[in-house]
Amino acid sequence: MLRQASHTLSIRASRPGLHEITGDVASIVGLSGIAEGLATLFCRHTSASLVIQENAAPAVRRDLEAYFARIAHEGAGYEHDDEGPDDMPAHLRSALTATQLSIPIKSGKLQLGTWQGIFLFEHRRSTPLREIALHIIGE
Amino acid sequence: MLRQASHTLSIRASRPGLHEITGDVASIVGLSGIAEGLATLFCRHTSASLVIQENAAPAVRRDLEAYFARIAHEGAGYEHDDEGPDDMPAHLRSALTATQLSIPIKSGKLQLGTWQGIFLFEHRRSTPLREIALHIIGE
Amino acid sequence: MLRQASHTLSIRASRPGLHEITGDVASIVGLSGIAEGLATLFCRHTSASLVIQENAAPAVRRDLEAYFARIAHEGAGYEHDDEGPDDMPAHLRSALTATQLSIPIKSGKLQLGTWQGIFLFEHRRSTPLREIALHIIGE
Repeated sequence: MLRQASHTLSIRASRPGLHEITGDVASIVGLSGIAEGLATLFCRHTSASLVIQENAAPAVRRDLEAYFARIAHEGAGYEHDDEGPDDMPAHLRSALTATQLSIPIKSGKLQLGTWQGIFLFEHRRSTPLREIALHIIGE
Repeated sequence: MLRQASHTLSIRASRPGLHEITGDVASIVGLSGIAEGLATLFCRHTSASLVIQENAAPAVRRDLEAYFARIAHEGAGYEHDDEGPDDMPAHLRSALTATQLSIPIKSGKLQLGTWQGIFLFEHRRSTPLREIALHIIGE
Repeated sequence: MLRQASHTLSIRASRPGLHEITGDVASIVGLSGIAEGLATLFCRHTSASLVIQENAAPAVRRDLEAYFARIAHEGAGYEHDDEGPDDMPAHLRSALTATQLSIPIKSGKLQLGTWQGIFLFEHRRSTPLREIALHIIGE
């Protein structure tokens, strides 16, 4: 019999950039008791986002952070600059990555690949407390 | 008891760029009577896309539109140019943003953050009529 | 009565770039017998991704491949380079496109627009075998 569960995950990244949350999400999925189904994560912010990336080599994370800092950089003459120089780049980096991710669940586990981790991508220097809404459906 | 509902939202942006559709989506979710669940929006086009962005400061929208016009600009020597100079940049901007978004529903409301709005990102100057397929599941 | 189905699609692109999988996904949805619902595709890799793009003009695909090769190019002085010069650009192009896509199903068919195709975006030159996890829910 199909059923659903929901949860809000509150997290604060220790520093701007990629902050792994795979374990937090896996725990919530485990507690839901839903063994086969679909888990959806939704980031309730426009200056932080979600990304699935390699969880093994830390250099991948550093290169990825450097890349986004370069293609959506600060001080590019943005009209919107009254919330700090890192605010408009944060909106752009959010639009380029994901606000939402859905991951199938099989035998009680998120069906991530061997090298995949789920990351909160924090784009603000102030690293505010962030909320990720989780929805789980299945049986 | 879980159930589902579907709807097709037909919209035409008044001008190219970000066109807010939060109210339209919230109305359809409200009419479905599903109070706890998940709403999925799917943009049935390759030259328009979806984005969750700040709904407060209009300058954010203008900066975001200017950014995408810059990183996927017209006249970059594209091979595909028989549908107009704005067509290939439209495909690129669609690939960089989202074709689909899923948003959890709680107590009858989309679980958007305080500053989040749902936008159709229209990339064509002709602003054709667009279809967004909605799927809602829950109870 | 709502029910769900799951499947893992194993595919190898014939060459790097966009590899259409619309037919494979449609077949699995057809075999599931779910006529109204939602299909979710999840790419279990960080150096390949998913994208919905035009399936008609081959020039669109070539321009899109050339664009991503340009904005996340090889030899940009990445710290992570021990898995080959095409590895770090592969992670960046994955982050810029989609790891997951959900598509509504209506009357037994994926609700894609007339010109939309589903593509595996293979970013590695070695074109390894890839797994896409599929989850289908509906009735």
